[in-house]
Amino acid sequence: MTDDTDVPSPAVATDGGTSPSDEGADGWDATPLGSYRALRASLRTGRPAAVATVTNVQGSAYRRPGAKLVVAGDGNSTGAVTAGCLEDAVADLARAAVDDGKARVERFDLTADAGGEVWGMGLGCNGVIDLLVEPVDESLAPAVDELDAKRTVVVATAVGSDSSEIAVGDRTTLTTDGDRVARDRPGLPDAVLDAIADDVAALRESGASATVTVETDAGTVEVFVDTLTPAPELLVFGRQRDVPPVARLGREAGFRVRVVTGRGGSADADRFPAAHEVLPTRSPDLASLVDAPATTYAVVMSHNFVDDRLALESLLDTPIPYIGLMGPRKRFAEMREAFAEEGSPLGDADLSRVSTPVGLDLGGDHPTQIALSVVSEVLAVHNGRTGGRLAHHGGPVHRRATPPGSHD
Amino acid sequence: MTDDTDVPSPAVATDGGTSPSDEGADGWDATPLGSYRALRASLRTGRPAAVATVTNVQGSAYRRPGAKLVVAGDGNSTGAVTAGCLEDAVADLARAAVDDGKARVERFDLTADAGGEVWGMGLGCNGVIDLLVEPVDESLAPAVDELDAKRTVVVATAVGSDSSEIAVGDRTTLTTDGDRVARDRPGLPDAVLDAIADDVAALRESGASATVTVETDAGTVEVFVDTLTPAPELLVFGRQRDVPPVARLGREAGFRVRVVTGRGGSADADRFPAAHEVLPTRSPDLASLVDAPATTYAVVMSHNFVDDRLALESLLDTPIPYIGLMGPRKRFAEMREAFAEEGSPLGDADLSRVSTPVGLDLGGDHPTQIALSVVSEVLAVHNGRTGGRLAHHGGPVHRRATPPGSHD
Repeated sequence: MTDDTDVPSPAVATDGGTSPSDEGADGWDATPLGSYRALRASLRTGRPAAVATVTNVQGSAYRRPGAKLVVAGDGNSTGAVTAGCLEDAVADLARAAVDDGKARVERFDLTADAGGEVWGMGLGCNGVIDLLVEPVDESLAPAVDELDAKRTVVVATAVGSDSSEIAVGDRTTLTTDGDRVARDRPGLPDAVLDAIADDVAALRESGASATVTVETDAGTVEVFVDTLTPAPELLVFGRQRDVPPVARLGREAGFRVRVVTGRGGSADADRFPAAHEVLPTRSPDLASLVDAPATTYAVVMSHNFVDDRLALESLLDTPIPYIGLMGPRKRFAEMREAFAEEGSPLGDADLSRVSTPVGLDLGGDHPTQIALSVVSEVLAVHNGRTGGRLAHHGGPVHRRATPPGSHD
Repeated sequence: MTDDTDVPSPAVATDGGTSPSDEGADGWDATPLGSYRALRASLRTGRPAAVATVTNVQGSAYRRPGAKLVVAGDGNSTGAVTAGCLEDAVADLARAAVDDGKARVERFDLTADAGGEVWGMGLGCNGVIDLLVEPVDESLAPAVDELDAKRTVVVATAVGSDSSEIAVGDRTTLTTDGDRVARDRPGLPDAVLDAIADDVAALRESGASATVTVETDAGTVEVFVDTLTPAPELLVFGRQRDVPPVARLGREAGFRVRVVTGRGGSADADRFPAAHEVLPTRSPDLASLVDAPATTYAVVMSHNFVDDRLALESLLDTPIPYIGLMGPRKRFAEMREAFAEEGSPLGDADLSRVSTPVGLDLGGDHPTQIALSVVSEVLAVHNGRTGGRLAHHGGPVHRRATPPGSHD
């Protein structure tokens, strides 16, 4: 999906800013932004594509349910469903889905007992992976629209059925507002959606995806409940040469990145090619840029004391969960004094959101090392983690999704 | 320093491997690998260049002593000495140094009281920064040779003198073997080198650089003691599609990256463009690749149980400080059982070096997020850190260098 010439350009940013690059990285290591972009491009251009989604895993698997691989008609793919074990098989299924317009479910048993070395091509893939492979069609458009509006959306799709009334691929999109939308394909019966409502709510809340089994009068139906979340936003306030590495790594880590130069006038989009958007908004007006506060993370790094203080003041007026402030502790102590002298001292609720010195404790002082430290912290905070070494922790590597129930 | 056509290519790796790319990133966010490469390129080609080195800082400064900016004759620069405040001034000094062949020292006072807004161009730079700006000449060749041999080296350079016998730029290179080498420029007198020997030892040990003041019979001399350390090595064992992001971020973080595919035969260099070297070495022979064990970090991620176990076994035969093992705890538990069944159970000393699950606890599961977690952990371990949030710690952001003494 590298040829996007027919895709409408992202709207030019207001406030004099520009959008120097389109969203998400291409290729195998694409984040969800990249996969969503590939879906959107296919829907907008009508160019055929297929999408494979992990619906269930057993045993050791590299990707979790909900992981997506979008295969364009020209064979270019965006995203990954394994660590590289099944591309050829998935490419074949994708072609077939585009050709016959039908959704299909395939189980890949990569355990050694099941001949995993055949599927795994000796690469040591293992676990059992269920994939939904389907053409990209209008049934996905409501979900993409919701993501474009920065709202989480749940897509419920039949992935198994012994009911004659429900076929694999039947789909209902469940919006944050509570709407049930079916387009281009049959929707799921209300009885099924009612039966999985609690699971949907739990999965939506945790941002996870899972397959839920429902017993109906007409038979057993397996529904893949796929939670699609808009990409988190990284707002970088600064314009010096330490900003581009933060923007680049932030984008690679899956954030939608906006660089705010704070200078007024027009934005220097060329200086920040990795940013999704470059804006000249001045420090006191930063709050006006926050339109998805629950998942917006800010890094304040203009190196100018007054600009940084005004940026902090503006951002603290919003409910965003994290404001990283570049610079030593002493500088922030001076900033707190300035707030206090103004008669608006920072309270505990403010202080808990200001992270300074910004970043994880990695010990590097080179620009990219500092950027690595900053983006790692933002990612950890977004995922409710504190950094630190996994080997020193006791918990599982992946967040556990709410275990799906079985409804009788 | 982007035109390297005349520079000899890095030697093709033995063992069927190739060197798909030259070392280090270019540009402002270059790590030391990039700066060293720029120095080496100028020395080998004879193309004029200058190098600016931070020798001292007071107050808030973005880079520490030892940070380098190499300016090629065509104006291209590699590295950074500030967050972007002094480029124009440094470019002028670099041109002058190339023209007259002389080293010079310049103090930039970026504090507001000293008119920092003039130097800082309103960008909020501050602190006082001393720079040594000099032509790249043969006086630097012994240090580059030591780095090429993966040895730490100390370069002692006069940066201030009221002695008529010692001029700014006089230089002696101090090798790990204890040699004192002067080339192309007058060396420092033995009396001066003897007087700073303890400082040199401490700075070499901590990997830091600092200016030391020495009182001699002929007057006061300021010596910049610059510790240059070879880039740490990141050895990635694996060949699947999750390897390239680890190689790419590892390189960006300043590591010399070798990808080992473990397949024998020839290496797939094209698949890992960010690696400095791609080798097909098989898992039982990994130890043979470790030639700088104190600063070699391994990540074992072939996804193949047997290959990973053999890789681990081989790497544990070396004294490298860190072996990250991809995969869940349960898999490593099974691996430990396999070691025990073989009659060679892993001891505490082994276990303390095996980091599994690999990476910092960032919570992401996308390929680049996993790579970010892995490379962040390697960087933290290299710097003796644990990767938690700086805001939750009490210490300073930078490692403190051993405070230089004043010798009377």
